[in-house]
Amino acid sequence: MGWHIKRNRLRVEELINEESLFFLGNGYLGVRGNFEEGYPEGFPTIRGTYINAFHDIIDIPYGEKLYGFPDTQQKMLNVHDTQSIQIYVGEEEELYALDQGQVLDYSRKLLLDEGCTIREIHWKSPLGKELNIRFERLVSFVHRELFMIKLNLIPVNFSGKLKVVSSINGDVENYANKEDPRVAAGEAKRLHLSKLLLNEGDGYIESQAEVSRLRTGCVTRHYTDSADVTVLEDDHSKQLLFNYVWDAEKSVPLSLTKRTVFVDSLRHEEDLYEAAIGLQHSLDEWSDDEIFHEQREYMQKFWQHGDVRVSGDHRLQEGLRFNLFHLLQSVGRDSYSNISAKGLSGEGYEGHYFWDTEIYMFPVFLMIAPDLAKRLLIYRYSILNHAKDRAVEMGHQQGALFPWRTISGKECSSYFPAGTAQYHISADIAYSYIQYYHATGDTDFLLDYGVELLVETARLWMDVGHFNKNGFSIDNVTGPDEYTAIVNNNYYTNVMAKHNLVWAVKAYRIARKRDSKRVTDLAESLSLTKEELEQFKQAAAVMYLPYDKQFGINPQDDTFLNKAVWDIGGTSADQFPLLLHYHPLTLYRYQVCKQADTVLAHFLLEDEQDFDTIRNSYNYYENITTHDSSLSTCVFSIMAAKLGDLEKAFYYFGDSARLDLDNLHGNTKDGLHMANMAGSFMAILFGFAGLRVKENGLHFSPKLPDQWSDYSFHVHGQGQLISACVTSQYMRLKLVDADCPVEVHVNGLHYKIKPDETLKVFLAD
Amino acid sequence: MGWHIKRNRLRVEELINEESLFFLGNGYLGVRGNFEEGYPEGFPTIRGTYINAFHDIIDIPYGEKLYGFPDTQQKMLNVHDTQSIQIYVGEEEELYALDQGQVLDYSRKLLLDEGCTIREIHWKSPLGKELNIRFERLVSFVHRELFMIKLNLIPVNFSGKLKVVSSINGDVENYANKEDPRVAAGEAKRLHLSKLLLNEGDGYIESQAEVSRLRTGCVTRHYTDSADVTVLEDDHSKQLLFNYVWDAEKSVPLSLTKRTVFVDSLRHEEDLYEAAIGLQHSLDEWSDDEIFHEQREYMQKFWQHGDVRVSGDHRLQEGLRFNLFHLLQSVGRDSYSNISAKGLSGEGYEGHYFWDTEIYMFPVFLMIAPDLAKRLLIYRYSILNHAKDRAVEMGHQQGALFPWRTISGKECSSYFPAGTAQYHISADIAYSYIQYYHATGDTDFLLDYGVELLVETARLWMDVGHFNKNGFSIDNVTGPDEYTAIVNNNYYTNVMAKHNLVWAVKAYRIARKRDSKRVTDLAESLSLTKEELEQFKQAAAVMYLPYDKQFGINPQDDTFLNKAVWDIGGTSADQFPLLLHYHPLTLYRYQVCKQADTVLAHFLLEDEQDFDTIRNSYNYYENITTHDSSLSTCVFSIMAAKLGDLEKAFYYFGDSARLDLDNLHGNTKDGLHMANMAGSFMAILFGFAGLRVKENGLHFSPKLPDQWSDYSFHVHGQGQLISACVTSQYMRLKLVDADCPVEVHVNGLHYKIKPDETLKVFLAD
Repeated sequence: MGWHIKRNRLRVEELINEESLFFLGNGYLGVRGNFEEGYPEGFPTIRGTYINAFHDIIDIPYGEKLYGFPDTQQKMLNVHDTQSIQIYVGEEEELYALDQGQVLDYSRKLLLDEGCTIREIHWKSPLGKELNIRFERLVSFVHRELFMIKLNLIPVNFSGKLKVVSSINGDVENYANKEDPRVAAGEAKRLHLSKLLLNEGDGYIESQAEVSRLRTGCVTRHYTDSADVTVLEDDHSKQLLFNYVWDAEKSVPLSLTKRTVFVDSLRHEEDLYEAAIGLQHSLDEWSDDEIFHEQREYMQKFWQHGDVRVSGDHRLQEGLRFNLFHLLQSVGRDSYSNISAKGLSGEGYEGHYFWDTEIYMFPVFLMIAPDLAKRLLIYRYSILNHAKDRAVEMGHQQGALFPWRTISGKECSSYFPAGTAQYHISADIAYSYIQYYHATGDTDFLLDYGVELLVETARLWMDVGHFNKNGFSIDNVTGPDEYTAIVNNNYYTNVMAKHNLVWAVKAYRIARKRDSKRVTDLAESLSLTKEELEQFKQAAAVMYLPYDKQFGINPQDDTFLNKAVWDIGGTSADQFPLLLHYHPLTLYRYQVCKQADTVLAHFLLEDEQDFDTIRNSYNYYENITTHDSSLSTCVFSIMAAKLGDLEKAFYYFGDSARLDLDNLHGNTKDGLHMANMAGSFMAILFGFAGLRVKENGLHFSPKLPDQWSDYSFHVHGQGQLISACVTSQYMRLKLVDADCPVEVHVNGLHYKIKPDETLKVFLAD
Repeated sequence: MGWHIKRNRLRVEELINEESLFFLGNGYLGVRGNFEEGYPEGFPTIRGTYINAFHDIIDIPYGEKLYGFPDTQQKMLNVHDTQSIQIYVGEEEELYALDQGQVLDYSRKLLLDEGCTIREIHWKSPLGKELNIRFERLVSFVHRELFMIKLNLIPVNFSGKLKVVSSINGDVENYANKEDPRVAAGEAKRLHLSKLLLNEGDGYIESQAEVSRLRTGCVTRHYTDSADVTVLEDDHSKQLLFNYVWDAEKSVPLSLTKRTVFVDSLRHEEDLYEAAIGLQHSLDEWSDDEIFHEQREYMQKFWQHGDVRVSGDHRLQEGLRFNLFHLLQSVGRDSYSNISAKGLSGEGYEGHYFWDTEIYMFPVFLMIAPDLAKRLLIYRYSILNHAKDRAVEMGHQQGALFPWRTISGKECSSYFPAGTAQYHISADIAYSYIQYYHATGDTDFLLDYGVELLVETARLWMDVGHFNKNGFSIDNVTGPDEYTAIVNNNYYTNVMAKHNLVWAVKAYRIARKRDSKRVTDLAESLSLTKEELEQFKQAAAVMYLPYDKQFGINPQDDTFLNKAVWDIGGTSADQFPLLLHYHPLTLYRYQVCKQADTVLAHFLLEDEQDFDTIRNSYNYYENITTHDSSLSTCVFSIMAAKLGDLEKAFYYFGDSARLDLDNLHGNTKDGLHMANMAGSFMAILFGFAGLRVKENGLHFSPKLPDQWSDYSFHVHGQGQLISACVTSQYMRLKLVDADCPVEVHVNGLHYKIKPDETLKVFLAD
């Protein structure tokens, strides 16, 4: 149950959203679920194929440009279109098209357990010829560069001519919408075709991005039999058309496989054609069935480590698996790429990577696929030098300031109060490094990457902050809540910076124990002294964490509680999200939160405050939060669960698992909300199951909402895979394929899970 | 002494700056001091003629555009060029040009007492013909639309042909500089020629702005005798060329007068041609001599009311008069126009009006030309509806929020933290209304404009601010200091808002006494109730004015003193102005001020704090102010004088009076620094003479710097003109042309100045 996402009716108004829902990807390549046959003229569509991190550089315009404002930003490009296949029926060559003839039957499925999509159409032509059409699509998890379409045709009530025209098109551009000010019309065409050639039946297109000069190429090879083949270039030499003509027999199936290999100049050898052709040749050894089989195996292994089951809620179950699948499809696996706000499913946010990665997506991968989680960390390490340069540009003497949004490592945010000012992203990245160490105990990772990154981010805090009568203060930053900007002593930022500082010192010591010589060398190359480490410790020790006695809460910043409270109840529903109806200056003036800020800090670092402060804060901020950000409710759900309010936890969990499946935000067409997808999973792990990843291992505090009979999931801890199940009575923990025991905490008590044993912890009522 | 600004040497590298220094204007029209003969190809120049408030509308680009960001801004346009005159010598038609032949003698003078410029050249052609050339220029203060050039030629050592080609050119565009991000290359050409015609020797050009659809036209008429005349259009019908040929006799002077009348669709009748021709015809009645004479008379009257004399410092004297003259040339005299940051001298800041008007330029006019001061207030009244619309757009329920920069009344600032967020501009405008009433006692003005404007601005404060435990707080605004942004309870803003609120109520009561019926009607039309007035009073009464006990100062805002102090001494000289070397976020993080903020508030409203607080604040802020704004030092000079530190006052006064004359900021080419020009005058009036304009009249607290033997000036008080002189021993006050006495305060004591008597107040040592 819950493995197939199905659409059994052709609803044309939903197709543009389905392009996102049915997208296929593998972290390198993403292909939107466009129809091979295309759409009628003027039909809304975003036809797209993306290579993670493949981008151009575009100018950022400003009315008034001040010092340090980035000149340019990166933009993920739509690359060559190899999706198109046209079908012509009979001697009359009736074109199969949505607005021609009659669709007698239709279905489309996303097979979460097999990693492919299948679309089947029973079509009747205007002249009455019926044809069964089946498109199977796959972007391979095993062969990174491969996108494959397998077309099956069965003439139902006729024999005779069948013609298929399969094309590859270099005349592509990004989606532009003059109504959407984030997408300038003039910036759509950034990829320029430089080569188009045909060689022994293989079609090859190569293009180059206008400013970044990055190049991408693709080779398409077709497999079929018993067809006459001709190949044409179009008038403008922008695409190649492969014509296949069969003398078809009624009820006898015909098939055509179209395999495209995508390459790019970031990852592949200088001669892209050679690279792509080489990959195509090597794929010759795999039959279509083998490729589908491999894919199925990959998925099985993934679900074995990653599946989460919720008994008693089919729709939720479907949503959760759908989300995990798309996260898996979108996460970058090399040092060039990460996971963008919309993954590889669309062009929203221009393919940029945000803090969403570290705070929302990373924790999911850390628990179900730590190898992928590690890749995300290494990407950040790869842009550390950019972050150091940016710190200097921003007037700091030292440290690493990570960009708020980026692809290649340079800051892409042009509205700094809700962009660059969110310094917390550097602490968020540090936090993910520390979490990785907590979950894996991987000291080599600290030696290779962790110590350096933690020291460079710690240095930023030492430079941004300063000691004053309150302790160590950090002024003039923006926290996660984007309805409040440029404040002093944002609680979230300060407590995360404290953690960063503490762990810069700890990581150093842990690494030194592991390999004193390497750490000495590292310290030297970083000019890191004992005195500096001592300063980190001092700053952390006296880090100013604002606390308000009257309310018993942590104020979001120094002056937050002095502001007027926004009348959320008195604001009419059509005024939300507020940011689309109020000037930021107006929003900044009030106590009103777009999303969890202090509450998020209390989730990430719960040991920094006592339970009462956390509860009071939750109650206080809940009343002034609009959840206008899709990153908000999952955090409130998690914290409601911690506070024992399961009803609230369930309320905030709500439909978030199906936000995109049901297009609840109305913009699924632009791509899937990756952080929210991760958030639904987080709400189960960190919310209901009460998971925390701490220095001394995994901690659970499991609870079961009334609405479910039980739920189960997998997590990684200390390098081992643990299967967990929560019922109303107990939590059951079991190691998968392990040979040594793992220690965990459940409701504050310490347990050891031994191989081949099941640990059952009974829960109090 | 000090009436003529002279340049006796032709220094080509200075010419672009001299274009600003020698500009001529009358508040309606401004013509830069370009050479009639033009410059060699590629020579740096900004050739410009401007009509105050004549603008186009251009798009504002944003990388990320949020709600309420203005879509467009206005841009003052360079209009038709009627400056050009070419001179050809002899049968060989040798062209007089800078890079041809030899300049044997050269001088240019700006005659401050006559309101014109004279340029004289003794030129020797490559073939040895010598010619005396004299250009007299005038933009009439009497005939608003008139720009006139009078050319005199004397052949020195030859007889024969002399040819003059005078042109009027519609092919104009604004200055564009790709290196200057504020001026986009693509926005330069915004004015498009629509008519070009010749009628009975008059040349006419009409053009229209691309988006605003505003139209401007000009008629040029030439006066000469004994010349053959032909008129040509150029190839592209963009200009008219008037050819004059004389058979000249050695040593016999020839002359040509070129009078142009400029009109525009904001101020003139629908048919611009008719309007301009009508004006030309009426000017026929005036001979050149009469026009120069009228101008001289106008200037004499102005200086009689406005001159300031400083004995013992010729350079300063020259600077002061130069500044006053250019202020007079730039100030708008109708409800469409105001005085822009660069006046009519250049295109810097695109002809926008800022708070500079109310806080720097207005007080000067209020004292020396209250009729012009009143025009500035009426302009603001004319855009009151725009300000009310803007308040709504910014999320306010009521009130008037004036634009930070504008021409036609709509907000033009695209960087809101240092633009729209400077809400204080609304209180600044209110302050100028109150000052006007203080100086003139004009209750009709309150009835016509004052009450309404004060009530609408007061309403803004009621909506922006809120009552809390501290009293009445105003959150999330930016004060005058642009190195600190978006703060709570900026002292300057709060105290100015308080004054605004108090005077909304007072003005209402004063006006009601004067004309109860009209005020009742007015209150009704404004829906103004007693309750609302009571709320104004209450908010003013408990307005929160931050005070720090430790330092005994008014902190700039709620958290200013918690920030780290910028190390100004440790910052190398090439890092100033800081805004060109540091990201605003970095600057906002420190205690560092671009300009006077709290110190300015203490000048404007000195009775709000005790002397100690004012002195302590001055000392505190002095240490952290960079004076990177040209609006800063005059305020520090004024306050140093108040605090009795004449040495400091003189130090800050410094060279500011000659900032443009000596191009101290290096950007005089873009236009003159109007606010600074006013500031030099303010420093004498409000600084050394200690003038304050209060509810009960003028207050003086005169002091004489050691460097001067005495100084004198004129001010208006209670509708009378007062001549004042300060020596080391006394202050002498005398009414000019008055028939009733005027009450003043000198050093806290009350005096009456009677007509035909001289009041001498002796000063203590």
